[in-house]
Amino acid sequence: MKFETNWRPVRNNGMPLYRQIADYVRAKIESGEWPPGSRIPTERAIAQVFGVNRSTIVQAFAELTADGLIEGKSGSGTIVSAAAAWDNEVPKLPDWEAYVKTGVHRPNQRTIQDINHAEFIPDIIRLGTGEPSPDLYPKAMNRILRQLPPQTDIFGYPEPRGLYPLREEISKHMAGYGVNVSPDSVLIVSGALQALQLIALGLLKNGSSVLTESPSYLQSLQVFQSAGMSMIGLPLNEEGMDARALEHYAGSGKGTLLYTIPSFHNPTGTVMSLNRRQDVYQLCVKYKLPIMEDDAYRDLWLDEPSPPPLKSLDQNGLVLYIGSMSKTLSPGLRIGWVIGPEQVIHRLADVKMQSDYGASTLSQWTVAQFLRQGLYGEHLDHVRKELRARRAYMLQLLDYYLKGVAEWVEPAGGFYIWLRFKRDLSIHALFDAALKDGVLLNPGYLYDKTDQNHLRLSYSYASFEQMKIGIGRLAHSIP
Amino acid sequence: MKFETNWRPVRNNGMPLYRQIADYVRAKIESGEWPPGSRIPTERAIAQVFGVNRSTIVQAFAELTADGLIEGKSGSGTIVSAAAAWDNEVPKLPDWEAYVKTGVHRPNQRTIQDINHAEFIPDIIRLGTGEPSPDLYPKAMNRILRQLPPQTDIFGYPEPRGLYPLREEISKHMAGYGVNVSPDSVLIVSGALQALQLIALGLLKNGSSVLTESPSYLQSLQVFQSAGMSMIGLPLNEEGMDARALEHYAGSGKGTLLYTIPSFHNPTGTVMSLNRRQDVYQLCVKYKLPIMEDDAYRDLWLDEPSPPPLKSLDQNGLVLYIGSMSKTLSPGLRIGWVIGPEQVIHRLADVKMQSDYGASTLSQWTVAQFLRQGLYGEHLDHVRKELRARRAYMLQLLDYYLKGVAEWVEPAGGFYIWLRFKRDLSIHALFDAALKDGVLLNPGYLYDKTDQNHLRLSYSYASFEQMKIGIGRLAHSIP
Repeated sequence: MKFETNWRPVRNNGMPLYRQIADYVRAKIESGEWPPGSRIPTERAIAQVFGVNRSTIVQAFAELTADGLIEGKSGSGTIVSAAAAWDNEVPKLPDWEAYVKTGVHRPNQRTIQDINHAEFIPDIIRLGTGEPSPDLYPKAMNRILRQLPPQTDIFGYPEPRGLYPLREEISKHMAGYGVNVSPDSVLIVSGALQALQLIALGLLKNGSSVLTESPSYLQSLQVFQSAGMSMIGLPLNEEGMDARALEHYAGSGKGTLLYTIPSFHNPTGTVMSLNRRQDVYQLCVKYKLPIMEDDAYRDLWLDEPSPPPLKSLDQNGLVLYIGSMSKTLSPGLRIGWVIGPEQVIHRLADVKMQSDYGASTLSQWTVAQFLRQGLYGEHLDHVRKELRARRAYMLQLLDYYLKGVAEWVEPAGGFYIWLRFKRDLSIHALFDAALKDGVLLNPGYLYDKTDQNHLRLSYSYASFEQMKIGIGRLAHSIP
Repeated sequence: MKFETNWRPVRNNGMPLYRQIADYVRAKIESGEWPPGSRIPTERAIAQVFGVNRSTIVQAFAELTADGLIEGKSGSGTIVSAAAAWDNEVPKLPDWEAYVKTGVHRPNQRTIQDINHAEFIPDIIRLGTGEPSPDLYPKAMNRILRQLPPQTDIFGYPEPRGLYPLREEISKHMAGYGVNVSPDSVLIVSGALQALQLIALGLLKNGSSVLTESPSYLQSLQVFQSAGMSMIGLPLNEEGMDARALEHYAGSGKGTLLYTIPSFHNPTGTVMSLNRRQDVYQLCVKYKLPIMEDDAYRDLWLDEPSPPPLKSLDQNGLVLYIGSMSKTLSPGLRIGWVIGPEQVIHRLADVKMQSDYGASTLSQWTVAQFLRQGLYGEHLDHVRKELRARRAYMLQLLDYYLKGVAEWVEPAGGFYIWLRFKRDLSIHALFDAALKDGVLLNPGYLYDKTDQNHLRLSYSYASFEQMKIGIGRLAHSIP
C-alpha cells in the first residue's frame, strides 16, 4: 500500500514529533483503518511523507511496540498486532490482502498508479499529462453557474440515456461534423473512459479481441483486459493505421472490434488521412467489424480541421462514436458521449444504469447550457490559440535541449508530442530520475509494452515556466 | 428494443402525419441509427408513442416498403432492408443483436428496465420510487452555486480517493455517528451503487457468494451476479437479519461477504436492534466475514435515530461502510462514499480510476461546501418534517383504501412501506394494470424473486395529491 495522507506533525507545538506520530498511528489502529494483522507503511515511507528523520519514526515505533500495538515480523515488515484487536484471539480479520489481490478487475499498471499519485505532489512538473491546464478552463462557466436552473433540472436522476437538452445539443454539435443523428442515439457517459467500460461489459464477451493502433492510449488501460479480452496492435504510419495489417487480422477472423483514435491520435498525434479513413471503413464493412471511434481530440485541431469522422461515412451503423468534453471544457465535469445504433445505445444505457445511475445531472446541465448559449465555439477559439503558443514553445525547447538525442514530428492538433530517442535507453530509469527531480513523465511503454525509446510529452498542462524547467531537467536526466 | 423518442409528428402543419412519420423513419435509416438488417419498432409501439392511429403507421410503412427501405420478414417483424445499406451487398452490418446479447454484464431485470423508462412518462404517479421528491431538494444549494469557487477546484480531475475537502467533511460527519476515521480512509464514489460495483470488481472473485437480507434491495441489482457471484438470502424479522441463519451460512464457509442495510432497510423499513448489531458483528468476527454496511438512509430517521452503525463497533477493519447523499440531498449530484481499511480504499480507488476517473468534481465541491457551511443539519430537519407528514398521509390512505386486503408496519424512518397483501395474487398483473392506469409500482419480487404478495411503497416521491389518486387507483386495480 502506498502511504499517503494530508496529515502532518507540527513542529514546536509543545509535543515531540515522535509522540505526535505515535498518536497518529494509534488512531489509525483504534479506528480500524489499519486493522490487526495488516502491514503498516515502512519507517522510510512515513519519514519521507512527514518530512522527518527516520530516527523519529524509530522512536515512535518503539513506543507503539512497547504498548503492544505493533510488532516487527520477519519477512513482512511491521504489522498491527493481534493484541490490538477488539477480540484479541483473532489474529487477522478478515484477510483483506487476499481480497485485494483476488478481485476480477486488474490493478492499473504500476507506473500508471505512480503517475496518478505523483500528480498530487505539490509543485510537480507534469510534462506528459493528458489534460488541459487549469488556465484553459472556460471563464464563461461562471456565468452559467450563476444562472441557477430549476432545481429539478440539476438535482434529479437523469433519464437512462442522459439529460435530454444535453443530448439535443450534442446531436446539433455532431451535425457540424457531418454526423446526423437524433438525440435518441446519443448516450451521455461519465467521461469517455466510462464509454469503454460500458462497451467492454455490455457488448463483448470473454475471449474477445480488440484491434487497435500500436502504440495506443488503449494499451495503457486495463478496461478490456479486466473483462477477459486481449488486444492486438496494428502498426501506424503517418496516414494512420496500417490497412494491410487490419485486413490481415480482420480477414482471419481475429478481432471482435476495432478501436481507433483517428484524429490527433494519443500518444502519437497522427491524423488519419481521408483516404485511409475510407479504406479502414470499407475493410470493416467487408469483414463486419464494428468500430469504436474515439474522437476526444477532434475539437482541438490547431492547423486545420481533421478529416470527417468515420461515423460520418457510416450509414451501416457500424461505428460507435465516442466524444468528450474532458479535453476541451474541463475534465472535472466528467462528461462524454457515445453515438451508435439505437439498440446498442439502449443496451449501454442499461449497463450504465447498473453502474452509477447516470452522470452527475449538475454537470450535464452545465455542459448543456454552455453549448446552448453558444459559448463553446468561442471557448475553442481561445483554447486553440493558447495551445498553438504552447506547442510552439515546447518545440522550441525541444530544439534547444534535445535536438541531438531525440526526434519528433510537429503535431497538427491535440496535446501530444511523441518524442523518440535516437537510441534505446531505460525509460524506466529516466522516469524515476525525472520524478526525483520533480518532473512527471509519461513513458512510451504505457502505450506499447515493448517500447523502449519514446516519451509522450504534452504541451497542454504545464505552464511555460514549468515546460522550460521540466525539459531542461529532462535533458539533464538522460544517461 | 424499447421505442422511445422525444420527437412527435405535428398535426395540421401542412404535411400528412403518415408522411412525417415516414420521413422520421427514413432519417433513422439514413443516419445508421437503425442499421440495415435491424428490426424496427412495431407499428403498435410507434402508434402508441406518437399518439396516432395504427392505420397511419401502416400507411407510412407502405410508403417505406415501396421505396425499398424496409421489408416485412416473417418471424422477425419489420426490418431495415439490406438495399438501404451503403454497400448493398452486405445484408447486416455488424450483427449488433449478437453483441448486445453476449456482453459480460447482465441486463437489468425486465421490470426494472420498464420502471427506469416509465419514470419518464409525463404525469406518471410513482408510488414506489426510492428518491426524494424534487420539493425536498435543498433550496440553500442556490447559495452554494452562486459562490463560484476557484475554477481549479471544480473543473480539474480529482485525486483518486476524491476531493480532499469533501473527504474531510465526510470524516467529520461520520464522527457524529461514532465512526472515527481520517479522510485517508474515505473514498468518494459516484453514488452508492458504484461502491457496490467497485467492490464486486475490485475485491471479489468469480464464484464468490454474498449473504444478504431477504428481501433486499441488493436482489434487485445485477451488479454482483454480473461479476459471476451468487446471492444467499437470510430471513429478516423485526430486529433485523436472522443471526442463526447467518451463523449457519458463515459457519459452513458459504458466503464471502455480508451485505446489510441495518437502518431503515430497503424495502422493508426494518431497523436492526443494537443487540442484533452486536450479535451480527461478533459472528462476522468469529467467521472472518467482511461486512458491507449500506447506510444510505441513516440520516432519515423520523421517530428516533437508529442505533450506531456496525462500523462504529469495528476496531478490526471488518466493515466497509457505504454512505450516500442521494436520498437526503439530491440523487442528481451522484455522490456517495465508502469507508474501510486504507489498503481496501486504495484498491477501490484504483478500480475507480479505471472506471470513470472519479466523480464529477463540480458535484463533489458542491456537497463539500454544503456540509462545510453547516447547511446539511438544517436541511435534514426540514426533510424529516416533510417526510413525517408524507408518511402519516400515506398511512392514512392505506387505512382507508387497503385495510381489508393488506397489512403493513409503520416505518421508523427512510422512505418505504412494505405492503403485504393478505392473499397471494399476481403482482405482475397488478404492476401492468396499475401502469396502464398511470401508476408506477415497485413489486416485491424485485427484492425477492419468489415473492408474490408484497409491494414496496414509497412516501418520499409522489405529491400528496398523487398519493391520494395513486393509492385509490391501486385499490381499484386489485383483482
